[in-house]
Amino acid sequence: MKLGIIGLGKMGFNLMLNVLEHDHQAVVFDVNAETVDKAAAEGAKGTHSIEELIHELKAPRVVWMMVPAGELTETVIEQASQSLEAGDILIDGGNSNYKDTVRRAEKLLEKGIHYLDVGTSGGTAGARNGACTMIGGSKAAFDSIEQLFKDICVENGYLHAGESGSGHYLKMVHNGVEYGMMQAIAEGFELLEKSAYDFDFEKVARVWNNGSVIRSWLMELSENAFAKDARLDGLKGVMHSSGEGKWTLETALDLQTATPVIALSLLMRYRSLEENTFSGKVVAALRNEFGGHDVVSS
Amino acid sequence: MKLGIIGLGKMGFNLMLNVLEHDHQAVVFDVNAETVDKAAAEGAKGTHSIEELIHELKAPRVVWMMVPAGELTETVIEQASQSLEAGDILIDGGNSNYKDTVRRAEKLLEKGIHYLDVGTSGGTAGARNGACTMIGGSKAAFDSIEQLFKDICVENGYLHAGESGSGHYLKMVHNGVEYGMMQAIAEGFELLEKSAYDFDFEKVARVWNNGSVIRSWLMELSENAFAKDARLDGLKGVMHSSGEGKWTLETALDLQTATPVIALSLLMRYRSLEENTFSGKVVAALRNEFGGHDVVSS
Amino acid sequence: MKLGIIGLGKMGFNLMLNVLEHDHQAVVFDVNAETVDKAAAEGAKGTHSIEELIHELKAPRVVWMMVPAGELTETVIEQASQSLEAGDILIDGGNSNYKDTVRRAEKLLEKGIHYLDVGTSGGTAGARNGACTMIGGSKAAFDSIEQLFKDICVENGYLHAGESGSGHYLKMVHNGVEYGMMQAIAEGFELLEKSAYDFDFEKVARVWNNGSVIRSWLMELSENAFAKDARLDGLKGVMHSSGEGKWTLETALDLQTATPVIALSLLMRYRSLEENTFSGKVVAALRNEFGGHDVVSS
Amino acid sequence: MKLGIIGLGKMGFNLMLNVLEHDHQAVVFDVNAETVDKAAAEGAKGTHSIEELIHELKAPRVVWMMVPAGELTETVIEQASQSLEAGDILIDGGNSNYKDTVRRAEKLLEKGIHYLDVGTSGGTAGARNGACTMIGGSKAAFDSIEQLFKDICVENGYLHAGESGSGHYLKMVHNGVEYGMMQAIAEGFELLEKSAYDFDFEKVARVWNNGSVIRSWLMELSENAFAKDARLDGLKGVMHSSGEGKWTLETALDLQTATPVIALSLLMRYRSLEENTFSGKVVAALRNEFGGHDVVSS
Repeated sequence: MKLGIIGLGKMGFNLMLNVLEHDHQAVVFDVNAETVDKAAAEGAKGTHSIEELIHELKAPRVVWMMVPAGELTETVIEQASQSLEAGDILIDGGNSNYKDTVRRAEKLLEKGIHYLDVGTSGGTAGARNGACTMIGGSKAAFDSIEQLFKDICVENGYLHAGESGSGHYLKMVHNGVEYGMMQAIAEGFELLEKSAYDFDFEKVARVWNNGSVIRSWLMELSENAFAKDARLDGLKGVMHSSGEGKWTLETALDLQTATPVIALSLLMRYRSLEENTFSGKVVAALRNEFGGHDVVSS
Repeated sequence: MKLGIIGLGKMGFNLMLNVLEHDHQAVVFDVNAETVDKAAAEGAKGTHSIEELIHELKAPRVVWMMVPAGELTETVIEQASQSLEAGDILIDGGNSNYKDTVRRAEKLLEKGIHYLDVGTSGGTAGARNGACTMIGGSKAAFDSIEQLFKDICVENGYLHAGESGSGHYLKMVHNGVEYGMMQAIAEGFELLEKSAYDFDFEKVARVWNNGSVIRSWLMELSENAFAKDARLDGLKGVMHSSGEGKWTLETALDLQTATPVIALSLLMRYRSLEENTFSGKVVAALRNEFGGHDVVSS
Repeated sequence: MKLGIIGLGKMGFNLMLNVLEHDHQAVVFDVNAETVDKAAAEGAKGTHSIEELIHELKAPRVVWMMVPAGELTETVIEQASQSLEAGDILIDGGNSNYKDTVRRAEKLLEKGIHYLDVGTSGGTAGARNGACTMIGGSKAAFDSIEQLFKDICVENGYLHAGESGSGHYLKMVHNGVEYGMMQAIAEGFELLEKSAYDFDFEKVARVWNNGSVIRSWLMELSENAFAKDARLDGLKGVMHSSGEGKWTLETALDLQTATPVIALSLLMRYRSLEENTFSGKVVAALRNEFGGHDVVSS
Repeated sequence: MKLGIIGLGKMGFNLMLNVLEHDHQAVVFDVNAETVDKAAAEGAKGTHSIEELIHELKAPRVVWMMVPAGELTETVIEQASQSLEAGDILIDGGNSNYKDTVRRAEKLLEKGIHYLDVGTSGGTAGARNGACTMIGGSKAAFDSIEQLFKDICVENGYLHAGESGSGHYLKMVHNGVEYGMMQAIAEGFELLEKSAYDFDFEKVARVWNNGSVIRSWLMELSENAFAKDARLDGLKGVMHSSGEGKWTLETALDLQTATPVIALSLLMRYRSLEENTFSGKVVAALRNEFGGHDVVSS
């Protein structure tokens, strides 16, 4: 098929390569003209605007957005919806909030445009060689392009999860689980690092990846990371976060669900952004007020 | 080689089958005589006491204990050490606390007996078909029997981790990580279960296992579990725990290490043992004392 | 002064009694006509509509809303703003979300109406005998009615905290702290209840209230509660929550602030609403999949 | 009465002043001879050894130890028990672990010596002007010296809580609650500090201390602290801890009790000891391995 791709960042560009490799055609646009040229060199048809991209496709069109969630996605949808027609399919492959997705899908449906939300996991390597996609929106629209997902995903690596928003919801929760698993693994290695034993972390990650209960792709990534830097001396312990962990916890609060591990994984990331917390100062100040910790405290 | 095995529970029996399959001989003992007979039927040499088992082996002997941690392990060591001789190797394949291991190893070394601690992961299937083992204790003793580990473990599935206790320490931390990962996955599915979408959990687990960041053996087990009982209606949400999660947290406290995810994974297990907590009653009582929540609370 | 009061629930009615006792006049309205009659019997001037209430007051008017946050507050503001004039003061004494407050204040200011947000703490007893109020909005408007706060609050029990929304923000955070303190106290008593000692909780609360570091009004309430029901046998451990704990945590996430104690206090409340969690079932299912916990688990 | 006091640190010295003020006599010993001289100047009878101190008292003797928990307490008990006789009372006013207390009480009882464990709260000001004491051990022994507690404690500020160890248990849990309350307060102020509003923390603490639900001694201390340093600029956010919070959590684990607030209060203290955690590095490394966070993460 002929697929429109808007957004050629790391994820979008790799997705394009993946698509091309599977004998599809790609018509692409990115705000960065150089990137478009690079894409053209790989066999895609470059365009200079969203409008042009859409006009290069024949109805029913299929356009895959791979742009940052939020305002940019909003803008692209607005522009695209002016050129798209009833029966066309617009895919949001980014990490949009599922509530935004539901709202957008309803609005696009008024024009007859099918909006599919596709949560994508697997990182850039996945986008390139076989992603994992969680898809929400019209089942009929999905069915009409299922072959695309079959081609660009690993085996059994795509799922039409349900109504509009379910794909992004699933991806959001996936990321919440990911936060928890990463923090669990990280705490484990910190307990090794602080112990009296002299563990070889790369070897530990390797043995944990072979036959153990906790073998996992994240543990494989740990093995890779320790292979490159045995004690991670080159890194600071600052843990950034995209919005999805936050949304997961906010959703948990909306659903009155106790998710302490996801919550703490996120809060520890926030904690890592600071060297010196104000709450820490308050506790230190209160301890000072007690008047003496040297003998019998508080 | 000819290996003594003490303890033929689910883990021990499967280990024995694994050993036999790799052209080793097994001399076995269990307090349950029927189990010993069953083992003999599989090709092992059954014995009626630890003493007899040890006398069936030639020096330098190798004896693998697969018995519950704690008193029983203590007792078996005491008995075994009366018959073992300098140069023999005694293996603790159970989930002993690494502090006990260090103490025991020191005591056995006084008699010249090498004590190897072998943390074993992978469940009964692992014990049978290829385990993951984390080994602490004398490197020379380990080297002398490395082939055994090569045979009974999956490829790259064993590691001599360091001095005495390091194997059990690694297994302990492994279990702490496991607690965190399990709770993360469980929280994720609870967020799916409580959402307005109608997710098919088995299919979700499957897609998460193919190409996603959180693919893992635990997610495969999730897929299996949902395949058997789509909504887990047959289960109560009671989460038991063996001692290792607790030891991990106690170790974290000893090392002054912040491990909130491991901590909460454990605490939520304790919470699940109760329907009605006293702390909940106290909070409810305090809210009552405020005097009125119907309009503007507290 | 002559104060309009809209909403005569537990908090509003007690506030009215408090106001009347301090030689102010009160013109009141409530949707429940009986309550209005009851108020009239206490010396207030009852009215049958918000419009009537406002017309009973002379400019510049001061009207105190004491109604549930959310839609009802929204409705009352809409109605009141139709009768209020430039220079009048409208007070929201409820637990509104500070973001709503900022939005409402801006809108009312277009008409010249001053909107003060007054977070109120101390429960119904406080409303009656001396509240604690945290006030946001125009400093000039506050100054013009400071005497009212002086009269109805305990000594030093009111604070003009800053711009619009700061009063409700302060009350919100106050409730977050309250959640944390209550959960801390509750956990403490649970550790007493589960210990081998036979503590008298009322006596413990009393001694902790006299000279200890943790003496506090919440501990006094604990003492009262245990005086009525020594082991809280008459209560279930279900911990309900109003919206403010949730808002506090959501605000923490917006500010990327690690507030684990406030987070967990809230999550444990959610947890208490369920007997059997789905996450618990998932963990139990995973443990079953391991294949055997009787000897050497996982 | 004539009271022996061993240990004249901040707590012990203030306790001595308190005792003297209530017309008791004090015979004191401290390893620091200067401190003993200082105590003598206040009216106490100074001695140069534990043995001498005990010989200055008449049977039945009452000796109050106010020394750091652990080895030092152990040593003092050993020395004192050589001079004490059946019927004498030895008081441990320090923060000993209740398990040690039970063990020590049993051993001393073999000699007929009554061992009372007295958890003391209120800081140095409390020790000086009126403490809060939680007392475990023989009820008869306690009864024989109840007047002492009446004198040195605030009104209703002492409690014979039960059998040996119950006083230290109660103090331990008290400290666990204190950790939770402090962290709750600290998180609240951090949410103020990070907000867009410009709060005056001292004034906030003051208003929260007058009429609000969270009024408490710890909030009074907060007010004092902010009065001295409005934004706590002079402090680092490092939160040290004595052993009691750790013991509380360890006890919670032994009792299989979910105490997330106490747990996290402690873990955040540990977290504050480090600028750069290894777990943070691991998470950062894993995020790097994903391969690109700039567009669509993970």
